[in-house]
Amino acid sequence: MEHLDTNERQLIWERIQKALINEQIDTFRAEFLEMHPYDQAKIFEEQPEDIRLIIYTYLSPEETAEVMEHVERDQVEELVAEMNPSYAANVLAEMSTDDAVDILNELDKNKVASFLTIMDKNSSDEIKALLHYEEKTAGSIMTNEFVVVQTKQTVKEAMRHLRKEAPEAETIYYIYVVDVEKRLVGVISLRDLIIAEGDWLISDVMSDRIVSVPVGEGQEDIAQMMRDYDFLALPVVDFQNHLLGIITVDDIMDVMEQEASDDYSKLAGVSDMDGRDENSFVSAKKRLPWLIILLFLGMFTASIIGRFEATLDQVAILAVFIPLIAGMAGNTGTQALAVAVRGIATGEINNSSISKILVREAGTGIITGISCGVLVTLIVYVWKGDVFLGLLVGISIMATLVVATIAGALVPIIMNHFKIDPAVASGPFITTINDIISILIYFGMATAFMHLLTS
Amino acid sequence: MEHLDTNERQLIWERIQKALINEQIDTFRAEFLEMHPYDQAKIFEEQPEDIRLIIYTYLSPEETAEVMEHVERDQVEELVAEMNPSYAANVLAEMSTDDAVDILNELDKNKVASFLTIMDKNSSDEIKALLHYEEKTAGSIMTNEFVVVQTKQTVKEAMRHLRKEAPEAETIYYIYVVDVEKRLVGVISLRDLIIAEGDWLISDVMSDRIVSVPVGEGQEDIAQMMRDYDFLALPVVDFQNHLLGIITVDDIMDVMEQEASDDYSKLAGVSDMDGRDENSFVSAKKRLPWLIILLFLGMFTASIIGRFEATLDQVAILAVFIPLIAGMAGNTGTQALAVAVRGIATGEINNSSISKILVREAGTGIITGISCGVLVTLIVYVWKGDVFLGLLVGISIMATLVVATIAGALVPIIMNHFKIDPAVASGPFITTINDIISILIYFGMATAFMHLLTS
Repeated sequence: MEHLDTNERQLIWERIQKALINEQIDTFRAEFLEMHPYDQAKIFEEQPEDIRLIIYTYLSPEETAEVMEHVERDQVEELVAEMNPSYAANVLAEMSTDDAVDILNELDKNKVASFLTIMDKNSSDEIKALLHYEEKTAGSIMTNEFVVVQTKQTVKEAMRHLRKEAPEAETIYYIYVVDVEKRLVGVISLRDLIIAEGDWLISDVMSDRIVSVPVGEGQEDIAQMMRDYDFLALPVVDFQNHLLGIITVDDIMDVMEQEASDDYSKLAGVSDMDGRDENSFVSAKKRLPWLIILLFLGMFTASIIGRFEATLDQVAILAVFIPLIAGMAGNTGTQALAVAVRGIATGEINNSSISKILVREAGTGIITGISCGVLVTLIVYVWKGDVFLGLLVGISIMATLVVATIAGALVPIIMNHFKIDPAVASGPFITTINDIISILIYFGMATAFMHLLTS
Repeated sequence: MEHLDTNERQLIWERIQKALINEQIDTFRAEFLEMHPYDQAKIFEEQPEDIRLIIYTYLSPEETAEVMEHVERDQVEELVAEMNPSYAANVLAEMSTDDAVDILNELDKNKVASFLTIMDKNSSDEIKALLHYEEKTAGSIMTNEFVVVQTKQTVKEAMRHLRKEAPEAETIYYIYVVDVEKRLVGVISLRDLIIAEGDWLISDVMSDRIVSVPVGEGQEDIAQMMRDYDFLALPVVDFQNHLLGIITVDDIMDVMEQEASDDYSKLAGVSDMDGRDENSFVSAKKRLPWLIILLFLGMFTASIIGRFEATLDQVAILAVFIPLIAGMAGNTGTQALAVAVRGIATGEINNSSISKILVREAGTGIITGISCGVLVTLIVYVWKGDVFLGLLVGISIMATLVVATIAGALVPIIMNHFKIDPAVASGPFITTINDIISILIYFGMATAFMHLLTS
């Protein structure tokens, strides 16, 4: 089987739909369950409510749970709301605990409480244990469906335990080892376990070089660690090293995608790009706050130029180069900003390297500034035949590039120092700051040397 | 063990360094090999060449291979060059085939040939089989160290085979099933295998709903699939469905990081942000090409304003609002661009939804345009007391926002249609296009209605 693209899914669905309409439950189930849950979810998302209501009656809560785990997170709320409450509670109980918790966190408190009451005690206890962790921390993305063994067990006993737990566990490829006080003391991969002899003790075959994360650790750092160390799962512990849960690589891939989208959105000045924009109002609502902030910053820039109106009145041609100079400042600032934000994210920039980075950026600004400055001086001189105008624009570009490059690097570093996510210093924001800097330099110089220009 | 941060690694290294200098091989090995290869690699990267040369003599090629797999890709070339050639060949032979191939692809042809000659035949054959695949395709990131079983084998036989192959294989958590002609016919997870009875046939326990990728498939699509379907590994096949290799999730995490970095760099107008910027010259070299292209585009913008010099001479105050209008155009265009680029990447935008997206973006542009336009008209009127100037700036902003939003969405969609990576239509590029559009609208209107302004 190839994976299915949108058209293939459409074709399959058209075939299955007949069975659904003709109430051929067995045919529908055979065809529908043949697909991977991801494809089931994609088809499901596109159906109108009346079709979805029929499908619920054809699938067990367990089967629907598998579908829900792959439905876009911002659509699940609506789906859960339309289900019969006791069916919904069963679906949530059958889902991976971490996914169920994600969904419950989106619902209002009363609804959550009622679902937890209907649900079997086992599932509701597991879910409650995860519900109170802060968003984007290890606690919020971990699951408590994992396999533990004791140091004193033999390999054979551990394997028997594993076979029994396998259907429920999120992963069985890492088995965590705890002592009598439930403290995490080791890990053994299934790879090593199947190679080991049956009568060996777990304490002899396990690795005690175990890497774990505290329950409050941020998800971005965890993703970075998982990628660096090539883990498939990471154990989560409290401050006394008790094993609380595990984080698996499939959840981390979602985190990576989300964080990348996040940084990208911020550089572009759009909040929350991940959710679907159903219509123009939804997307305008996400973009307007940024645009209005930038509008006011832009008015501020305008008021600064306004102070140089006398200069402009005398030498109108100065206005011609405003977008060039402001644009170059914005571009170079965004470059420096992006490099700094990535550097902070990947750990290249840390407290010990800040001064080195700033010196490097200043050097970069001087090199790009001189190159572009000389080029602009020549072009303006050839175009307008005015050497002073050429020098004015060229030197402004040069000074602007040096300052804008340093500002672009400095702003995220300072924000990071004050524990603010440096990615918030988005592209449009730094662009506007650099607009202002560049205009002050340009008109300041023009006003000072006006006698040369008007001659 | 916690994972190590930069300072902890430094402390550990200071302790180990003594052993190294005093030639206490055993102490050095015990302490060094105690760390995770990722931490070994981070320490290794920071050492001067003379220290590295000593370390090579203390570690076997196999141990060094583990370190090299975690060293930053752009530093490995230098490290391989400084090793004794036969030691280097052994190190490459001991690495995962896919990692060894990545490194060899960076070296010059003669060096590669000489390494392959020194290496044992088995390893060099495996490496040669992967060397010719195009960059960023399934072939270039897959490994050929995987476990296959036959349909006719029993579970017990398969487990025995697995135990033998486990130390060499990249993953043993998915076992692929082939027929007598080596065609991929099924897959079985180790999870299912350990639950199955020993005398069952593989053909009865395997799943034949197998998802595979063609060897030429792009790595970005593969990453998307792996994330959607929550796989830990994906088989790679040729057009006759012969199993050629597998791609594991740890490599896909690197791909995701790389692609995210790539899109981010392009939005910011920096090429190749991933490599380390050793000094100002290296980073200036990466940024200058963009800045110079944008400089020429900016000169073009300047020449357009130049055509309106007569208008400017009469109403110098018009210049005051140039950065505001151009800036708003740039910002709104970047927002629309970013949303479209992500939409294409995630599959939300496809051929059937293009017109819907463009209508939505036009609507978004109208809503944001009217909101910002009205706001600006009011502010300018209050500030300057000139209702016509207020209307001129406000209506320009409105028109600009509509056009810029549509342009921002349209450019990446068109590029994608012509199979050009839409992320290339970077932020600075769309910003400059929108600068030009906005200035034409603003000065065009100002020139047409000048008699109202000068009154």
